[in-house]
Amino acid sequence: MLTAFDFVDLMGTFAFALSGATAGVKEDFDFFGVFALTTVTAVGGGVIRDICISDLPPAGLTSIPCLLAIVAALVCVSFFQRVILSFEKATLFFDALGLGFFAAFGANKTWQYSHNVELSILLGCVSASGGGCLRDLLTGKPPGIFSQDIYASAAAAGAALELCGSAGLVPQSVSAWVAVATCTLIRLISLKYKIGLPSIKHNGL
Amino acid sequence: MLTAFDFVDLMGTFAFALSGATAGVKEDFDFFGVFALTTVTAVGGGVIRDICISDLPPAGLTSIPCLLAIVAALVCVSFFQRVILSFEKATLFFDALGLGFFAAFGANKTWQYSHNVELSILLGCVSASGGGCLRDLLTGKPPGIFSQDIYASAAAAGAALELCGSAGLVPQSVSAWVAVATCTLIRLISLKYKIGLPSIKHNGL
Amino acid sequence: MLTAFDFVDLMGTFAFALSGATAGVKEDFDFFGVFALTTVTAVGGGVIRDICISDLPPAGLTSIPCLLAIVAALVCVSFFQRVILSFEKATLFFDALGLGFFAAFGANKTWQYSHNVELSILLGCVSASGGGCLRDLLTGKPPGIFSQDIYASAAAAGAALELCGSAGLVPQSVSAWVAVATCTLIRLISLKYKIGLPSIKHNGL
Repeated sequence: MLTAFDFVDLMGTFAFALSGATAGVKEDFDFFGVFALTTVTAVGGGVIRDICISDLPPAGLTSIPCLLAIVAALVCVSFFQRVILSFEKATLFFDALGLGFFAAFGANKTWQYSHNVELSILLGCVSASGGGCLRDLLTGKPPGIFSQDIYASAAAAGAALELCGSAGLVPQSVSAWVAVATCTLIRLISLKYKIGLPSIKHNGL
Repeated sequence: MLTAFDFVDLMGTFAFALSGATAGVKEDFDFFGVFALTTVTAVGGGVIRDICISDLPPAGLTSIPCLLAIVAALVCVSFFQRVILSFEKATLFFDALGLGFFAAFGANKTWQYSHNVELSILLGCVSASGGGCLRDLLTGKPPGIFSQDIYASAAAAGAALELCGSAGLVPQSVSAWVAVATCTLIRLISLKYKIGLPSIKHNGL
Repeated sequence: MLTAFDFVDLMGTFAFALSGATAGVKEDFDFFGVFALTTVTAVGGGVIRDICISDLPPAGLTSIPCLLAIVAALVCVSFFQRVILSFEKATLFFDALGLGFFAAFGANKTWQYSHNVELSILLGCVSASGGGCLRDLLTGKPPGIFSQDIYASAAAAGAALELCGSAGLVPQSVSAWVAVATCTLIRLISLKYKIGLPSIKHNGL
């Protein structure tokens, strides 16, 4: 039976995979290149997290549902590009939901392995945004999240909230939903009103 | 005593190292830069595989034969550039042989550690082509294998065939040779007839 | 109580963090981007080392002093850019000291885990220069240490000297100081007299 947890996991992975597949097509990669970029974008963040907490082999590389989400994204960019375009808003929504979900899930998993707050927030963030960074690097760009919108910092907020539950300060069922909702909302508001983080002014440097 | 296995391993590593060393000289890196790029290209794929299956420290970073192959490649680009050029076809042959060998070896090793088909094919592929990807990234280019010739997909085919033996469907001595030969042949045919994988047409994206 | 060891560790990390923070501001990254680049530059080399020797989670991601050095670097680039510029020479000095310190410390730690000379020198080098390589990659450049000054090869010299102590050839208290001093001196001399490693001449390639 597909739980709400599984559903959000799957749709988030699919949204991430779709952003990788789309980037691959835009770069004119061949079919293998698009597959590789899709896979790295979809599971890259979780793989880095799992390597850092030594939960190996990384879950993302052995998961059949993940593979299906990747294949679905490849089918979409191969045959349904116009459909992708007309569902662009839905994709952004699921990407934001995936961001919140992976931030909370990644922070909680890291906490189980390490009981370290700093590490759990960092790796919650990496779980949610690492795949997108690798996608940008593999297409020859500095990570977009270093200069655009609010993305990874929304993930950091979600990870921090999730930890309140992991650490037993509030019931975990509450913290998980609050974490995912807060991160997703911050992200969606940032997108809708084009709010970004301030950058640091040059003053001599 | 040097077995056929050791010989193919060594010549494959040497061919990979040579492609890294050549790329480093073309980028006008200094001697350390050429050494670093050579090392990453020669052993990078295997290191990523070993990290993912937690066989640490990575074999490629502690292997004297690997180091000798790297040193030999450095000697070649330092003193025998014309020789490299006149043996370009031999190098491409050994690179193709290395591709097949590392795909089969990487898939088999991953299978021993994980008994997971998806992971074994992915990491067989990464063993064979990861070093080249890192070489391209470190010289500021998206991975060439994402858009040129047939390379990593030949490795995927080799890895899949090897697994038929690892999983006991056919005798392993048979599957290993079939895997290496098939991958090498696909690669050589792709090179000779300039056959690449199709890319995905833009249709709105 | 802060020992000499802790002090050098902290000042070295701070110098590395500052180079990451400065690069982030120059790239016009937003506040999160500058934070991420600062963190990767400060602890990236040690994280790669710890992953390769399977000492997980990586020490750099769970260390409060490291985090404080990163925060201090962020405060400096946010409010004291002119101060950074007027202390440029001090920063280069601490960067050179950090290079020596991390090379020696990384080589020694790797030796404790592996008792392998090749690995210990390689990872000593990576500890000291890996963060800077990742910084360059994340800002879209090939690693500067592949073509400028003497940097990673000074680290290799320091790592090799440190190992004489780790392996028991000389007292470890002697080898550590000699290693750090030699590496730091080579680096400072290279900077002062603009000495780089030779590059390999093109001769047909």
